[in-house]
Amino acid sequence: MRIAIDAMGGDYAPAETVKGAEKAASGNKSLEIVLVGDEKKIKEHMSGDFPNISISHTEEYVEMHESPSAALRKKPNASIIVAAKMLKERKVDALISAGNTGALLEATLLYVGRIKTDKVKIKRPAISVVLPTFNKPTILLDAGANPECKPEYLIQFAQMGCIYSKHIIGVDNPTVGLINIGSEDNKGSAVIKASYELLKSSNLNFKGNVEPSTIMKNGEVDVAVADGFTGNIVLKTAEGTGELVTRLIKKHVSNNIFAKIGGLLIKGAFRQIKKDLDHSEHGGALLFGIDGICIKAHGRAKHDAIENAVKVAVRMINKEIIKKVGEEMSEK
Amino acid sequence: MRIAIDAMGGDYAPAETVKGAEKAASGNKSLEIVLVGDEKKIKEHMSGDFPNISISHTEEYVEMHESPSAALRKKPNASIIVAAKMLKERKVDALISAGNTGALLEATLLYVGRIKTDKVKIKRPAISVVLPTFNKPTILLDAGANPECKPEYLIQFAQMGCIYSKHIIGVDNPTVGLINIGSEDNKGSAVIKASYELLKSSNLNFKGNVEPSTIMKNGEVDVAVADGFTGNIVLKTAEGTGELVTRLIKKHVSNNIFAKIGGLLIKGAFRQIKKDLDHSEHGGALLFGIDGICIKAHGRAKHDAIENAVKVAVRMINKEIIKKVGEEMSEK
Repeated sequence: MRIAIDAMGGDYAPAETVKGAEKAASGNKSLEIVLVGDEKKIKEHMSGDFPNISISHTEEYVEMHESPSAALRKKPNASIIVAAKMLKERKVDALISAGNTGALLEATLLYVGRIKTDKVKIKRPAISVVLPTFNKPTILLDAGANPECKPEYLIQFAQMGCIYSKHIIGVDNPTVGLINIGSEDNKGSAVIKASYELLKSSNLNFKGNVEPSTIMKNGEVDVAVADGFTGNIVLKTAEGTGELVTRLIKKHVSNNIFAKIGGLLIKGAFRQIKKDLDHSEHGGALLFGIDGICIKAHGRAKHDAIENAVKVAVRMINKEIIKKVGEEMSEK
Repeated sequence: MRIAIDAMGGDYAPAETVKGAEKAASGNKSLEIVLVGDEKKIKEHMSGDFPNISISHTEEYVEMHESPSAALRKKPNASIIVAAKMLKERKVDALISAGNTGALLEATLLYVGRIKTDKVKIKRPAISVVLPTFNKPTILLDAGANPECKPEYLIQFAQMGCIYSKHIIGVDNPTVGLINIGSEDNKGSAVIKASYELLKSSNLNFKGNVEPSTIMKNGEVDVAVADGFTGNIVLKTAEGTGELVTRLIKKHVSNNIFAKIGGLLIKGAFRQIKKDLDHSEHGGALLFGIDGICIKAHGRAKHDAIENAVKVAVRMINKEIIKKVGEEMSEK
């Protein structure tokens, strides 16, 4: 099993991507990791020799703030392009990047392409994330790949979400909800209403519209479907609110000596909560619909998030999640 | 100064609306409160005689789950219609309801109408809420009145948001951000992009696109503008995430004896955080654009939230916020 990691992608690359790769490689000897990027820079951060880590050298890479299309045109040997080509040629079984999301999406669309089988042709890949909710994880997709969507995309997202939930999370007959601003069936834009009708007439376990408040609180459904604009707003609001609460706790706890002692006593609990909420702990987002396992780790991913992403990739490779799309989906 | 409260609106009406009205009336003797609703039911919950509380009797009211248009047609004497007519006829200076949001919006649109002056005509009213962020409050609008918006609506929302921020929060030259899925200027749907251009060429203190993560964390801007779909998604995700974190804390704290003791010691801090996050503490949402002060309290509002809404209404009456729209806005 071989996994390519874009060593140059992410706010803390290559230091943290290399460290994460080393930890993943040490923990799983049957795994081969290919670090794609500037060999000299990568070696500076390597702590020793790893029999199961190799380097695919390229000097170019897309920076976080660059405009994806322009950067990819200007840098045909960017690490993300090299990695995407390896995935296309099946030289690796999965690709992980914490770099520029737009560049990852464009590079994989261009150089790997979408899933196409006799039965189904994926119209758009969706960024699929695992939302931490109270009882159980909810798969949210699309979390940002397609700001504007047609109802036909959303139904495919729902089908792919169910494949994720079933095979990766282990849920039998996953429930599906459409993210909306009310649970009544006449809510939302024309696209949302048409998507609702499509989902209702599908053979999915569709539970109707769900509000993000209920999803976050109760994990109301196993799969929450949205256009990429709405999904991204949900993800970023949840992220910001989580940080807001953490900061408020720190502020109020340091205001008074009893609270301070109390704060020390519950430090362990807090670490656990931060872990529960941190979606890098859940291994990053799958660009589901690309014809190969392609995982986007958080831009601020540290080594443990990279290591987690590798673990998720391994699970997805073992479960043959891409193959499942061809086996279980069909043009309704 | 007279304020009408829809006594029958809200999950805990009339018990909590009546109790909230009593507290507000006791705290401010110069205020007159008119409870609109079923006299018999209201009196059952009144704890005594209040010289500054009167009742405007009507037996009909819109229930929380009813379809707004149908309910208003069927019940011409619904409490919310009676209250809206009082606002229109200037028999009261403000209206507060914790009831069905759609019904409140339709009733006020129909029976009060939008702000129209020589200089400006409000195209759509926007639900304007005060988001609790870390450093300072951010006014979010539209938080749900108009799921689909034109750029011309969004620029009016921004202008109204600035009036709110300036006169109610006390911010000089408030900053404005457009809620988007990235801070780059080419992000989002066609409507968002066109709104961006309009805002950029306006004389507002426009800071460009802002992501909800930054707003929640840092209170990046004083006024955050969005279409009602996006704004509502932000509000409900923040609400759900806040509750999720609180529930996670409770779960982990009760897991171990030290954490339990710690939890007790920081109870006060938590109460404060809950207060910081609870937007009912901020007095509910203004239906800004209606030609009269019309405040929507949370459906789950208890008496303290109603009391707070009255306080906010008093501030808005004193600051003549509706008049400010005519004075400070113009068709650009």
